[in-house]
Amino acid sequence: MTDITRIEPTHRLSRLVVHNGVAYMTGVTAQDGTLDIQGQTRQVLEKIDGHLAKAGIDKTRMLSVQIWLKDIERDFAGMNEVWDAWVPKGAGPARATGESKLAHPDLLVEILVTAAV
Amino acid sequence: MTDITRIEPTHRLSRLVVHNGVAYMTGVTAQDGTLDIQGQTRQVLEKIDGHLAKAGIDKTRMLSVQIWLKDIERDFAGMNEVWDAWVPKGAGPARATGESKLAHPDLLVEILVTAAV
Amino acid sequence: MTDITRIEPTHRLSRLVVHNGVAYMTGVTAQDGTLDIQGQTRQVLEKIDGHLAKAGIDKTRMLSVQIWLKDIERDFAGMNEVWDAWVPKGAGPARATGESKLAHPDLLVEILVTAAV
Repeated sequence: MTDITRIEPTHRLSRLVVHNGVAYMTGVTAQDGTLDIQGQTRQVLEKIDGHLAKAGIDKTRMLSVQIWLKDIERDFAGMNEVWDAWVPKGAGPARATGESKLAHPDLLVEILVTAAV
Repeated sequence: MTDITRIEPTHRLSRLVVHNGVAYMTGVTAQDGTLDIQGQTRQVLEKIDGHLAKAGIDKTRMLSVQIWLKDIERDFAGMNEVWDAWVPKGAGPARATGESKLAHPDLLVEILVTAAV
Repeated sequence: MTDITRIEPTHRLSRLVVHNGVAYMTGVTAQDGTLDIQGQTRQVLEKIDGHLAKAGIDKTRMLSVQIWLKDIERDFAGMNEVWDAWVPKGAGPARATGESKLAHPDLLVEILVTAAV
């Protein structure tokens, strides 16, 4: 069997699970649910930068991302505005964006990242 | 090319696909749609235990899980109650939970698992 | 660090990201949003065939697929009709289907593919 490394495990999940050269990240949401979509997306992406650093990598190593929006019709453009400014040009992940209500009603965006270590 | 092993393939999908040390599992739902969220989650997790066994592993080898709930506001706490009792403490997967209606209206929860063989 | 190959990168994302023997594909939607679910699913699957070819593989190498439908109650059967005719019998991927509104209101289906190169 191959090794599994778990970063920041809790009783429920692990923040990051690294196996066979790939890091799987728990879905990331903003800590401040009063912010609008730009503000929440900015917080989410800052947290992702921090979590990637814990695995010794950065955003140029992202393989695949899912973006879940509470209200895609209203917030797709606002999320993309912040995303486009953050993602490494020409080195972005495969991406898919869909609508999904999230664990708390004030959360507008959750991002799921898979990256190469 | 690397080998792909398919466990319980049908005309539509495979229950498990194993490649390069990773097992990808088809989304799991309860067989009894009359159960509440606790009952359906319990059935789903029992089925996941069984499917992992078919790949020669168990729940300590989970890498990443997505949980889709039909009604996240109503059922998030009930799902977590059953999940928390089941997941290996300190060895949980990366996890994300969102709201999504499922293939049949009586299904309340579907869980997608990726695990290391 | 292991190599990452990005196929058709834009300022926002990459069509395909290949790493460690696995190809991650950006979510695929139909170009013609006036089509019904059968027509849109057919366009999506044709596009997936083309994208897999860019990575030097075909649909027999799919590991895992997520299917997001705008209206799962109405369109699950129609999507499956086209899917079942397309997917390699006995060599299908792990699969999960849920409901999610998509990036444009006229899009009825988006498919996310992970495949082995």
